[in-house]
Amino acid sequence: MSQDADYGKSGMGWAGGAYRPVGELAIPVTDMGFQLSDMCYDAVHVRNGKFFRLTDHLDRFDHSLNVRRYDRFEDSSGNLGPLTRVRVHEILNGCVARAGLKDSMITFLATRGTPAGARKDLRTATNRFMAWAVPYHGITTDEEMAGGCDLIIPETIRIPHAAVDPTVKNFGRLDFVRALYEAYDRGGDYALLLDTDGYLTEGRGWNIFVLKDGRLLSPDRGVLEGVTRKTVIEIAAKMNIEASLARITPDDIKSADEAFLSSTAGGVMPVRSVDGQSIGAGDAPGPVTQRMTDLYWALHDDPAYATPVDYAAGDAAAAE
Amino acid sequence: MSQDADYGKSGMGWAGGAYRPVGELAIPVTDMGFQLSDMCYDAVHVRNGKFFRLTDHLDRFDHSLNVRRYDRFEDSSGNLGPLTRVRVHEILNGCVARAGLKDSMITFLATRGTPAGARKDLRTATNRFMAWAVPYHGITTDEEMAGGCDLIIPETIRIPHAAVDPTVKNFGRLDFVRALYEAYDRGGDYALLLDTDGYLTEGRGWNIFVLKDGRLLSPDRGVLEGVTRKTVIEIAAKMNIEASLARITPDDIKSADEAFLSSTAGGVMPVRSVDGQSIGAGDAPGPVTQRMTDLYWALHDDPAYATPVDYAAGDAAAAE
Repeated sequence: MSQDADYGKSGMGWAGGAYRPVGELAIPVTDMGFQLSDMCYDAVHVRNGKFFRLTDHLDRFDHSLNVRRYDRFEDSSGNLGPLTRVRVHEILNGCVARAGLKDSMITFLATRGTPAGARKDLRTATNRFMAWAVPYHGITTDEEMAGGCDLIIPETIRIPHAAVDPTVKNFGRLDFVRALYEAYDRGGDYALLLDTDGYLTEGRGWNIFVLKDGRLLSPDRGVLEGVTRKTVIEIAAKMNIEASLARITPDDIKSADEAFLSSTAGGVMPVRSVDGQSIGAGDAPGPVTQRMTDLYWALHDDPAYATPVDYAAGDAAAAE
Repeated sequence: MSQDADYGKSGMGWAGGAYRPVGELAIPVTDMGFQLSDMCYDAVHVRNGKFFRLTDHLDRFDHSLNVRRYDRFEDSSGNLGPLTRVRVHEILNGCVARAGLKDSMITFLATRGTPAGARKDLRTATNRFMAWAVPYHGITTDEEMAGGCDLIIPETIRIPHAAVDPTVKNFGRLDFVRALYEAYDRGGDYALLLDTDGYLTEGRGWNIFVLKDGRLLSPDRGVLEGVTRKTVIEIAAKMNIEASLARITPDDIKSADEAFLSSTAGGVMPVRSVDGQSIGAGDAPGPVTQRMTDLYWALHDDPAYATPVDYAAGDAAAAE
């Protein structure tokens, strides 16, 4: 679940029209995707040989491409145009198939590209697409999956929506860097950031859920609209638990009965404490979190959410 | 001045212990410098074979390294430790010398590096250093240097200090990306961002100065503490013009007598209009801006600010 092997040492990626090992994937320093974080990305996972909610991830990536106005990708004939979903799906499948992974995390991204001149007019760049598949891993450790993780609420606030749109998943995350060092300094590993008004937002790569008075709550603004977050809300309906998006304060989570993180990288992950204060009875995961976790993984067998990986595509290419 | 040749097609860089063409410089996708914008950088220029205010740029870069806690660079023996100023100076000189440039813009940066595991604990990464020198260029065009550039004030606000420290020069600049597209949509090329409270901050790579009632003003917070900004303030003292850092409103700049941008990339660059409103008499550059520009370039001959490039270092290496 929380495999933590050497990062980037295994897996398979795609860039510049060719598949190559993850360790060889790099972005030119002249790409505005590096120099301005002018990029967007998404992350989807494969479980038991099947993509989970691939359509949702492709939908969100399309939204991101539109917001960023990335419509100048070069096709195999050298023509510039939008990136097609069929092509993205083909490459994601190709990465997983070539890596031969039955359980995988796949990152895919688009960047502005390198502008034509040193004055860096963003409209002159040709957009780039890249993707890579690595062995599946979660955000928290096996021990934390079993007993809950400890969060800290840092002084660093989340970059506000008025500056950067959080619904477009991106790598411009220096707020998380500073927040993580605050967590490290306080003996923790996970930071849950507040917004300008003091309400909970999210952590690096995860949304937060709070169970309070029998209701599930998750922040309503200033966050990535996570696919796992959406899945949790759907499962809650089946569990007859009211789930809603709301403004949540630090006091709300500290006095909650249960709390958990949601992410494609790890699914539902229990929280044990916030700023040193135990959540609920302090014996995470609580019953609702545990039931949510079980139903989340069971949902992976539902054909409505599963897209089988075509592993033959990788074999065929390897045999070429 | 505003050379706009093919970006990244000429010049010389350094990464991973070796000099290589700028077009071959790339950052691994597994580096948190890409995935979290977990990096810092600086930019210095060479004029007539001499670095300008190199010490100031190295001081600021040291400040950035300290704030980011980058002290795990690998030396040639494979040991981890801080990056020394002597080594940075040597590499910057090496890039310029090998590129054979008498007038150059040099970018140098440090990144967190690639963490050991997929859970991406930032403390496990080995920091990376890179640098590259390209032909000198300004932010504005030759026509704009002669007649002033047109700014727009976008709705997108600058990422606030409470989220990301703007005094550590960095590539996490998605606020500028959105702001630039607002400018493009309004027929402009340059966006001057406001802070959360509605005061002026900065643009992509430049500070702003306003001349009003005989006084020069520049924003006092939420901005990079530019070396050119500092130089302008020093020159103002010699001109017997009062210069101060203050909070400045959009109305202040629109009703100003003169306004200009300051940046290592271009020096002092006159502003003609803001949101379509002419500045002063509308005949930029105004007299103070012109005098400031002349004194700025004259200062490059002052030995106190000039560090000669050792071009023989490049020849020696080329002859090895």
